[in-house]
Amino acid sequence: MSSSKTLQVNGRNYPWMKHPVVVVCVDGCEQEYINQAIQAGVAPFLKKIAAQGTTWSGDCVVPSFTNPNNLSIVTGVPPAVHGICGNYFLDREANQEVMMNDAKYLRAGTLFAAFSDAGAKVAVITAKDKLRSLLGHKMRGICFSAEKADQATMEQNGITNLLELTGMPLPSVYSAELSEFVFAAGVKLLETQRPDIMYLSTTDYIQHKYAPGTPGANAFYAMMDHYLTQLDALGAVIGLTADHGMNAKTDSAGKPNVIYLQDVLDARVGAGKTRVILPITDPYVVHHGALGSYATVYLNDGANLDSVSRQIAALQGIEVVLTRAEAAARFELPPDRIGDLVIVSERLTVIGTSTARHDLSELTLPLRSHGGISEQRVPLMFNRRIEAPPSDHRLRNFDVFYFAMQAAV
Amino acid sequence: MSSSKTLQVNGRNYPWMKHPVVVVCVDGCEQEYINQAIQAGVAPFLKKIAAQGTTWSGDCVVPSFTNPNNLSIVTGVPPAVHGICGNYFLDREANQEVMMNDAKYLRAGTLFAAFSDAGAKVAVITAKDKLRSLLGHKMRGICFSAEKADQATMEQNGITNLLELTGMPLPSVYSAELSEFVFAAGVKLLETQRPDIMYLSTTDYIQHKYAPGTPGANAFYAMMDHYLTQLDALGAVIGLTADHGMNAKTDSAGKPNVIYLQDVLDARVGAGKTRVILPITDPYVVHHGALGSYATVYLNDGANLDSVSRQIAALQGIEVVLTRAEAAARFELPPDRIGDLVIVSERLTVIGTSTARHDLSELTLPLRSHGGISEQRVPLMFNRRIEAPPSDHRLRNFDVFYFAMQAAV
Repeated sequence: MSSSKTLQVNGRNYPWMKHPVVVVCVDGCEQEYINQAIQAGVAPFLKKIAAQGTTWSGDCVVPSFTNPNNLSIVTGVPPAVHGICGNYFLDREANQEVMMNDAKYLRAGTLFAAFSDAGAKVAVITAKDKLRSLLGHKMRGICFSAEKADQATMEQNGITNLLELTGMPLPSVYSAELSEFVFAAGVKLLETQRPDIMYLSTTDYIQHKYAPGTPGANAFYAMMDHYLTQLDALGAVIGLTADHGMNAKTDSAGKPNVIYLQDVLDARVGAGKTRVILPITDPYVVHHGALGSYATVYLNDGANLDSVSRQIAALQGIEVVLTRAEAAARFELPPDRIGDLVIVSERLTVIGTSTARHDLSELTLPLRSHGGISEQRVPLMFNRRIEAPPSDHRLRNFDVFYFAMQAAV
Repeated sequence: MSSSKTLQVNGRNYPWMKHPVVVVCVDGCEQEYINQAIQAGVAPFLKKIAAQGTTWSGDCVVPSFTNPNNLSIVTGVPPAVHGICGNYFLDREANQEVMMNDAKYLRAGTLFAAFSDAGAKVAVITAKDKLRSLLGHKMRGICFSAEKADQATMEQNGITNLLELTGMPLPSVYSAELSEFVFAAGVKLLETQRPDIMYLSTTDYIQHKYAPGTPGANAFYAMMDHYLTQLDALGAVIGLTADHGMNAKTDSAGKPNVIYLQDVLDARVGAGKTRVILPITDPYVVHHGALGSYATVYLNDGANLDSVSRQIAALQGIEVVLTRAEAAARFELPPDRIGDLVIVSERLTVIGTSTARHDLSELTLPLRSHGGISEQRVPLMFNRRIEAPPSDHRLRNFDVFYFAMQAAV
């Protein structure tokens, strides 16, 4: 194929690559994790990238959650276009909270579908299975999760015998090994099958537990550095970003700062007048108790938008309250899948629904979480030197494939 | 003295204490330092306070710098009342940047002056000498800095032979030992002279260098925990707060995110049209290069307020641009000592003047700094159980003496 060939996906022109492109989405990778791992001397490859490659910062999508951002990264567009703006939304007609992890909710095609259609060899590896069906929608090639690596079949996943390939046992869904499996499989696939495009998406189990620079975090980044070194040695152009950052959400004694918003609204506006939805909620909540810095509120008959908005804005720890239209414009969200109000809490505060609906007993360490504007800045690192875009270009994590492919031409 | 005696200082009523009150201002103590030190198992006393005493969070004064906050803590009022809103301000008539560390700039009396006048035994120990003359203004008793401990005289400081008292050599002004000297002297003074009120104010040399939970930070908090244990054993009511928090101001490779605001304004508005003042600037800048998240801008003839304001607000990394009146109202600042505009940058960004005026060569570690709204939440911890104020009371770091004295009655 000629090096001048390009492919248009969702309105953006992507160059066709000559070298394998590997994009790594490090779940919950606040920039400070990398900085501190380099300082601690456990990440020599990332230190080398910092000196010889490219290091930028970019903005992720708000809500700074996993699914909206993974979908933005693999479509190159914001949720207003691809449609996935959380794990949950409220289906108003059914009056039911609906999970948004089915591909039927996806409104844009992925880079993987477009490139595999055009003949590229594509491999997608995720830590948790919840992302697999969305990321793999309509693509040909390899697509599997570490969580269900033992169940991968040629028919469904384009690959099988993954435990043999990696030499690793099936990891627990709550472990650092779940992410390590993603990297280990990525290195083996690059060695054996040399895909043109590979996407490795980890889980933030470690980042929810350990602060940047602490032993638990540094061990994770040392592991990652080891596999990145191998991907680099195999000739891949590597682009590294994150779906979102991560911050402590506690006081100095480690107690979480939680606004139980449904309780507050029930008391002040009246029971049944409002419905608070936390789009962070998913079947895997052990490490964050479904508490993040973003919520959306639906108003029922008899609730006044201005009044509810003002009451929420006056709560300590709230950063901003936006109407549906304001939030859709500012965060580029699909207006039909967010509530009447969108609420973002400050860096150290999370939003819950009702006290009784959050089980914090499994939180063995002080809460660290995400979802807000405070977790929007994420790393954009490449193992090649890349010319900086014009200074008025707002860098996004979902530019990562574009720039990595530019560097692979 | 009767336990019902109170003393009014700057419009607030303070109870007279029966037990010695020790207030500790831990410079740059982002709450996460304490949380992580407890997690690492190196701060058993702080862990005990968290369980058996009182742990709150409060807001410090913005600009989140050392002098404005120390003065607020010891006067119980915001800078609008006490007048100290930074280390520097621009004397417009002289057209000169003037240091604000002379007591002539102080517009309110301190708790120390009032209580020592009323017969209380007071001791004030600061790490750096820059604060000593402000904190010690018009008070009787002991007041000295660790920095100049070897020069302390009975006449000027109310005490002498400090190296003998502590058994420590004179510490370097850039060291953890400078803060340790403050604690060591505090314990010895409580043992030997049992002051009624003691104020211990440390330096943030360590917090500028090390992230929460990393070995350099944990060692500092372990040291502090050791001395706090002794102060507690000696029967003191301890109140602990911070002058400001601390955040990384870099990208994932450790490069500082700096807006050189004077350069930007010279280029866009014209040379000489504006003057950017960084009130963080002081004679001790090695550990932060005079870079913080707060600046104030004075406009000269020919510069348009609205236009300059809009241009600054549009820069990536700026959190808020306020007029003098807006800033004075929102942050409770003295309007005559701030510029025409007040600028606060986001958590990960600092503001400089001109590239040439900042020497970053001495920054051996990635920049960590403060000054912004992002460093406003600080710990408020006490070794006694204290009844929480009404939920609509906005807790401030400068409430610390009030609550500690309540607990000492």
